[in-house]
Amino acid sequence: MDDEMESGNLGPYQDRPRTFPNMRNKTYTPLIFRILMRINVRVLFVLALLGLGAVFYIGASTSPIIVFVFTICIISFLFSIYLTKWVLSKDEGPPEMAQISDAIRDGAEGFFRTQYGTISKMAVLLALVILGIYLIRSTTPQQESSGLGRSTSAYITVAAFLLGALCSGIAGYVGMWVSVRANVRVSSAARRSAREALQIAVRAGGFSAIVVVALAVLGVAILYATFYVWLGVGLPGSMNVTDLPLLLVGYGFGASFVALFAQLGGGIYTKAADVGADLVGKVEQGIPEDDPRNPAVIADLVGDNVGDCAARGADLFESIAAEIISAMILGGTMAQRCKIEDPSGFILFPLVVHSFDLVISSVGILSIRSRRDSGMIGALEDPMAILQRGYSVTIFLAVVTFGLSTRWMLYTEQAPSAWLNFALCGLVGIMTAYVFVWISKYYTDYKHEPVRTLALSSSTGHGTNIIAGISLGLESTGLPVLVISISIVSAFWLGHTSGLVDDAGNPTGGLFGTAVATMGMLSTAAYVLTMDMFGPIADNAGGIAEMSQQPESVREITDILDAVGNTTKATTKGFAIGSAALASFLLFSAYMDEVAAFAQVPFRQVDIAIPEVFVGGLLGSMLIFVFSAWACSAVGRTAQEVVNEVRRQFIERPGIMDYKEKPDYGRCVAIVATASLREMIKPGALAIVSPILVGFVFRVLGYYTGHPLLGAKVVASMLMFATVSGILMALFLNTAGGAWDNAKKYIETGALGGKGSDCHKAAITGDTVGDPFKDTAGPSLHVLIKMLATITLVMAPVFL
Amino acid sequence: MDDEMESGNLGPYQDRPRTFPNMRNKTYTPLIFRILMRINVRVLFVLALLGLGAVFYIGASTSPIIVFVFTICIISFLFSIYLTKWVLSKDEGPPEMAQISDAIRDGAEGFFRTQYGTISKMAVLLALVILGIYLIRSTTPQQESSGLGRSTSAYITVAAFLLGALCSGIAGYVGMWVSVRANVRVSSAARRSAREALQIAVRAGGFSAIVVVALAVLGVAILYATFYVWLGVGLPGSMNVTDLPLLLVGYGFGASFVALFAQLGGGIYTKAADVGADLVGKVEQGIPEDDPRNPAVIADLVGDNVGDCAARGADLFESIAAEIISAMILGGTMAQRCKIEDPSGFILFPLVVHSFDLVISSVGILSIRSRRDSGMIGALEDPMAILQRGYSVTIFLAVVTFGLSTRWMLYTEQAPSAWLNFALCGLVGIMTAYVFVWISKYYTDYKHEPVRTLALSSSTGHGTNIIAGISLGLESTGLPVLVISISIVSAFWLGHTSGLVDDAGNPTGGLFGTAVATMGMLSTAAYVLTMDMFGPIADNAGGIAEMSQQPESVREITDILDAVGNTTKATTKGFAIGSAALASFLLFSAYMDEVAAFAQVPFRQVDIAIPEVFVGGLLGSMLIFVFSAWACSAVGRTAQEVVNEVRRQFIERPGIMDYKEKPDYGRCVAIVATASLREMIKPGALAIVSPILVGFVFRVLGYYTGHPLLGAKVVASMLMFATVSGILMALFLNTAGGAWDNAKKYIETGALGGKGSDCHKAAITGDTVGDPFKDTAGPSLHVLIKMLATITLVMAPVFL
Repeated sequence: MDDEMESGNLGPYQDRPRTFPNMRNKTYTPLIFRILMRINVRVLFVLALLGLGAVFYIGASTSPIIVFVFTICIISFLFSIYLTKWVLSKDEGPPEMAQISDAIRDGAEGFFRTQYGTISKMAVLLALVILGIYLIRSTTPQQESSGLGRSTSAYITVAAFLLGALCSGIAGYVGMWVSVRANVRVSSAARRSAREALQIAVRAGGFSAIVVVALAVLGVAILYATFYVWLGVGLPGSMNVTDLPLLLVGYGFGASFVALFAQLGGGIYTKAADVGADLVGKVEQGIPEDDPRNPAVIADLVGDNVGDCAARGADLFESIAAEIISAMILGGTMAQRCKIEDPSGFILFPLVVHSFDLVISSVGILSIRSRRDSGMIGALEDPMAILQRGYSVTIFLAVVTFGLSTRWMLYTEQAPSAWLNFALCGLVGIMTAYVFVWISKYYTDYKHEPVRTLALSSSTGHGTNIIAGISLGLESTGLPVLVISISIVSAFWLGHTSGLVDDAGNPTGGLFGTAVATMGMLSTAAYVLTMDMFGPIADNAGGIAEMSQQPESVREITDILDAVGNTTKATTKGFAIGSAALASFLLFSAYMDEVAAFAQVPFRQVDIAIPEVFVGGLLGSMLIFVFSAWACSAVGRTAQEVVNEVRRQFIERPGIMDYKEKPDYGRCVAIVATASLREMIKPGALAIVSPILVGFVFRVLGYYTGHPLLGAKVVASMLMFATVSGILMALFLNTAGGAWDNAKKYIETGALGGKGSDCHKAAITGDTVGDPFKDTAGPSLHVLIKMLATITLVMAPVFL
Repeated sequence: MDDEMESGNLGPYQDRPRTFPNMRNKTYTPLIFRILMRINVRVLFVLALLGLGAVFYIGASTSPIIVFVFTICIISFLFSIYLTKWVLSKDEGPPEMAQISDAIRDGAEGFFRTQYGTISKMAVLLALVILGIYLIRSTTPQQESSGLGRSTSAYITVAAFLLGALCSGIAGYVGMWVSVRANVRVSSAARRSAREALQIAVRAGGFSAIVVVALAVLGVAILYATFYVWLGVGLPGSMNVTDLPLLLVGYGFGASFVALFAQLGGGIYTKAADVGADLVGKVEQGIPEDDPRNPAVIADLVGDNVGDCAARGADLFESIAAEIISAMILGGTMAQRCKIEDPSGFILFPLVVHSFDLVISSVGILSIRSRRDSGMIGALEDPMAILQRGYSVTIFLAVVTFGLSTRWMLYTEQAPSAWLNFALCGLVGIMTAYVFVWISKYYTDYKHEPVRTLALSSSTGHGTNIIAGISLGLESTGLPVLVISISIVSAFWLGHTSGLVDDAGNPTGGLFGTAVATMGMLSTAAYVLTMDMFGPIADNAGGIAEMSQQPESVREITDILDAVGNTTKATTKGFAIGSAALASFLLFSAYMDEVAAFAQVPFRQVDIAIPEVFVGGLLGSMLIFVFSAWACSAVGRTAQEVVNEVRRQFIERPGIMDYKEKPDYGRCVAIVATASLREMIKPGALAIVSPILVGFVFRVLGYYTGHPLLGAKVVASMLMFATVSGILMALFLNTAGGAWDNAKKYIETGALGGKGSDCHKAAITGDTVGDPFKDTAGPSLHVLIKMLATITLVMAPVFL
C-alpha cells in the first residue's frame, strides 16, 4: 500500500508510517484461489466435471430431491459467476479512485487474513476439544445398533464442524471480495449514470448473496448425502434416516462459531474506526464525513467491508445453515413419530425451499435493470422504490414456489390436507418477514414520527437526545415481539391441526409448523441479503467519491445510494432478528430431542419453577447483558485509541487541515486492526465458555443432589432466557442505532437548524453512541443467539 | 408561598406567576392529622389506649406471637415519635433558610396531594373491578367447606387491597413529611457542627424508616389476627390456619399498586426537574447546581422529596409487605404438607423477623451519636464510616436475633435440626445483602476502577462517555446475578436438606429455605432505609444552604453529606433489587400454590417448551423493555418542557443572571407537577393491564384449543421472564446512572481537567442520561417486579 500511496497525488508521507504488517501485499489471494487460478482452464473444467459427477452420484444414491438441490445450486453458482464477470467488466475509474480503492482493499484483505488466521486456530483447537469429548462419551443405543460407534460419531461431528467453519469463512470472504472490487466501480459508474451505479451495487451484492445461500444449502446437502451413503442409511440394521439430521449439528456450530468472531471482530473494527473518525473529524474539527484530511478515513472505509460485508455474509450463512438443520431435525422427529412411509420429503423440505429461494431471488436481482434510454441522472427514480419493486417480485414468487414445494414435499396420505396447513404456515412466515421489515422502517426512517421526535429532542441538548434514543429503542421492541408471538402461536396451531398424529392419536405437527414458518420467513433470504450487501458497497462508493474529490453531481448520486443503503441495512437487521427468534425456538426443540435421544429418557419439559432452572434463566439473560457490554466497550476503547491518534496527527502535522500534509492513514488502520483482534476474544470466549461451564457445573450439582438431567435442563432454560433477552436487546440496539443515525441525517437535510447547529452536534453524539449498538453488539447478538443453540446441541454430551 | 417569597429578600416577582394550584396553602396537613391535632391530648390518649386494647385482645385470641409483634410495633411507634420530636426541636435557622424550606414544603405537599388524589381514585376504581371479579368467580372447595363464601372472600380481598393502598400512601407521606421538615434543620445545624447535621439527617431518616417497617408489619398482623378471629380459624369445620395467608395477598397488591404510581410520578417529577435544571443551568449557562438564579431549582429540590423520600418509603413498604405475605403463604403450605402440629411458627416467622428488624435498626440508629466535645468541623470523621459502623452493629445484631428467632419459631420435633438449616439460610440472605451493597459500591464509587475508566472516557467526548457508561451498566449485571444465583440455589438446598418431609417422605423445605434467605436479606431493612432516606434530606439541606447563600464552610459540610447520601442511595438500590429478585421467586411459588388451590389440579410446572408459554415469556420481557422506555421518555419529554421554560425566562428576564430579577420558580414547579402526573399514567397502566390481558387472552385461547390452565401457565412464564429481565434491566439502569453521577463528581474534584472542562461537559451529559435511569425507570422496575407478582396473585381467578 505504501508504494502505491507514495506515488499517488496525495504527496509523500512525512515520516515512515507504522503500517499494519499484513497490509503490504497489494492483492492478497488465498492459497486455494491462487492454485485454482494457476491451473489451465480446461483442466479445471474437467476436474470440476469429475467432482460434480461424484457429487451427483452420491446425491442420486440418496434421493432425487438431493439431485434437484444440487442442480439448482450449481446453476446458481454459474449465475453468480455471470454476475461477478458483469461487475468486474465495469471500469475502475480514474487512477485517484483506483488508488483509494486499492488502499481499502489492502486494508480489508490484510485484516481479513489476520482475523481468519486467529479464528481458524481457535476453530482447530475447539475441534480437538469436541473430538475429545465425543471420544469419551457414551453413544445412544440406536447409534450402536446401527453400527455408528463412538469414534465414527466423533469424526463425523468434527468433520461437520470444520466444514461448517470453512464454508462460513468462505461466505465471509466472498462478501468482502466482491465489495472491495465493486465499490470503486460503483463510484466510477456514478460519474455516468445513477441507474448504472445502482445496478452494479445490486449485482455485486447479489453475487455474494447467491454464493452464501448456495454454499449453505450445498454444504448441508453434501454432508447429508455423504453420511447417507457412507452409513448405509435405510439398509436393514443400520441407521434410520430420521436420525441422520442430528449428525449435521456440527456443521451449524462450525458456521456460527466463525460467524460470531467474524461479526465481533469486524463489528468492532468498523465502528471503532467510524466513531473515532467522527468524534475528531466531524465534532471537533468540523470537517465532513470521509474527508481525505481525516487520518482515520481509510480505516473507516475498510471497516465497512470487513464489518458489514464479510461479517454479514458469515452471519446470514450460519442463519440459513442453522435453520435448515434444525428444521430437518424436527421434520425427521415428526416423520418418525407419525410413522410416515417416506420421511425424506419432510427432512429435505428446507433444502428445497432454499433452492427455490436461489431461483426467485435471482429473478428479483435481474428485475433491477439498467435502462439505457433513461440513463440520465435527472431521470433516476427513487432507488428505494426500485429495490422495493424487486423485493415485491421476489415475495410474490416466494408465495407461489412455497405453495408448490409444500404440495410436492409435504403431501402424505395419512393427512391429505396437511400440506395446505403447512403452506399457510409458510405464508405466516413470509408475512412476518414483511411486517418486520415494515416495523424496522417505521422506527428508523425519518419519514415517520419516532425519528422526528428524536431529532426534536436533540434541540434541547446531548442528554435529551440520548434519553430519547434509548427510549425509542426500548419501546421499539414492543411491536416485533407481538408479531413474533402471533406467528409462533398461529404457525404452531396450524401445524398442530394439520391432521398429522402419532401412534396414540396426538397431534404432532405443531413444532414443524413453526419450522415451516421460519422457512417461509427465510424464503427470500438471498434477495434480502442482496439489499443488505448493497449498503456497504454504496457507502464505500460514496467514500471513494468524496476522497477522490469528485464533482458535486457524482457525490449526490452516491449520497442517495448511501442513504438507501442505510435503510436497507436497518431493515435487514429486523429481518435477521425475526428469523433468529423463530429459528432459536426450533433449535431449542431440536436440543430437547437430542438430549432425549442421548439420555434415553423423555425430555419434553423445562420447568422454570425449579430453582436451578430459574437460575439458569437468570444466567442466560445475564450472558446477553454482559456480552453486549463487552462488545460496546470494546468499540469505545478502540475508538478512544483512534481519537488520540487522530488528535496527535492533527497536532503534529498542522498542515493536514490545509491539504498541505498527508495524514498517516496506515497507522489508524493498524491501530484499529490490532485492537479489534484483541477485543473480539473476550466477548467471544464468554459466549462459548459460559453455556458449557453452566451445563457442566449443574450436571455435577445434579449428580450429587440426585437430580438427573439437571445440567441439560439448566442449559435449556439458559438458552431460552438468553434467546428472549437476546432478541429484545438486539432489537433495542439495532433500532436505537438506526434511529440516531437517521435523526442526524434528518437534521442534515436542513431541519432544526441543519448542519453545524447545536442540535446537529447533539444528533452526532447520538449517532456515535448508536454505532456500536447497531453494527457491533446488535448483529453479534443475532449470531450469539443461534450459536448458543448450536453449541448446546453439539456439547450436549457434556451436560448429561 | 407567594406571600412568603414576596416579603423575602429575593425581591418581588416581575409578573404574576402561574403557580401550581395546590401550592397556595402554606402548610397542608391531611384531614386525619388535623382532626387528631384538634382533639385534647388526654382524650386522644384514652382513645389510643382503647384501640390498643382491642387490637391486643384480638391478637391474644390468635397467638402469643401476634401479641409480641404488636408490642414491638407499638414500642417502635413510640420510639419514632421520640425521634421526630428530637428532630423538630432543632432550630429552622435564619429566615432566608426557612423561606426556601417553606417553598419546598409547599411544592412537595401540593404535588403529593394531587398525586395521591389521582392514585386514590384509581385505587377505588380497581377495588370495584376486583370486587366484581371475585363476586362472579367460583370459590375453592376448602373455602366453601369452611364457610368462606364468594362474597366474604370478595370483601376480604377488597378490604385488604384498600388497607394496603392506604398504608402504602401513609408510608409515602411520612417519608416526605419528615424530610421537608428535616432538610432546613440539617442545613441550619451545618452552620454549627457537621456531626449534629449528620445526626439530624440520620434520625429524620430513621423516623420514617421505622414507621414504614412498623406499618407494614402491623398492617399484616392486624389483618391476619382479624381474619383469624372473624373466620373462626382453627375451630372444627372452619378454615385451616395454613390457608389464611392467601387471604392477605390483596394487602400486598394494594401496597404495590400505590407504590408503583408513587414511584413513577415522583421519579418523573424529580428527574425531569433535575435534568431540565442541569441542562440549561450547568451546561448552557455554566452556573452551579442549586444556584438561586436557576428558575427550576425549587422544582428540583421539591423533586428530591416527592421522588426519593415519598416514593422510596412506599417502595420499601410494599417490598416488606409482599415479602412477608409470600413467606407466610409458603410457610403455611409447607407446614400443611409436613403435617406440622402447630404451623403458626412457620406462618408468623416473617412478622417476628421484622419485629426484631425494628429493634436492631433502632439500636443502629441510636449508635450514631453526637459527641458534644468533638463538634468542630475539622474533627468530623468520614460520615460514610460512621454510617457503615452503624450498619455493622445492625448486621451483627441481625445475625444474633435471626438465629434466636429461628430456634424459637422454627423448631419442630419432626425435624429437630431444621431450624439450624433455616438459620443458615438467613445467614445466606444477610451475606447476600452485604455482598450486593459491596458490588453496587464497587461499580458506582469513584474510588474504584469502573467509574475512573468511565471518567477517562469522557475525555474523548460525549459519545464515548455514553458508550462507556452503558457498557459499565450492562456489565455490572454480571456479579449480582452470580450472587443471587448462588444464594437461591444454596438456600434452596439448605431448606431441602432440613429434614422436613411430606407424607411420602419427599423433602419439602426447599422453597421455604429461599423464603428464609429473603427474610435474612431484609432483616436490616429499617436501617438500610434510614441510610437511603438520609440521601435526599442531605441533598435538600445542601440545596437550601446554596440557595440561601451560606458561607463556604457550611456548604462544605452539606456537600460532604450530600456525597455520602449519593453513595447510600446507590447501595440501597442494590439492596432493593436483590431482595426483589429473591422475593419475586417466592411470590411466583405462592402464585402456583394459589392457582393449584383454585383450579384443584396440581400446578407445579411451567414448561417453556410449550410455544404459548414461551410467547408469554417473550411478552413478559418485552413489558420490561417498553415500561422502561416509557418511564425514560416521560422524563425526557418533561425535561424538554422545563428546558424551554427556563430558556424563556432567561431570555425574557435578562436580569436574572445578575441577581437583579427573581426567576419564576412557581411556574417550573407547576409545569413539572402537571407533566409528571400526566406521564405516570401510561407506563403504570401498561404494567397493570398487560398481565391481566395476556392471562385472559390465553385463557380463552386455551379454552378453544382444549388446553387447560393455559392462561395461568402463560402468566406464570410472563411473570418469570419479566422478573429476570426486570432484575437485569434495573441493575443496568441503577448502576449506569450511579456511575455517571459519580464520574461527574470525580471530575469535579479536579481530575481530568476539573469543572468547566470539555471532559466535565461530557460527564454532565452522562449524568443527565443517568438521572432517569437511576431515579425513575430503575426504582420503578423494583416495584413493577413485585407488583406483577401480586397482581397475578389477586387476579388469578381471571386466568382460570
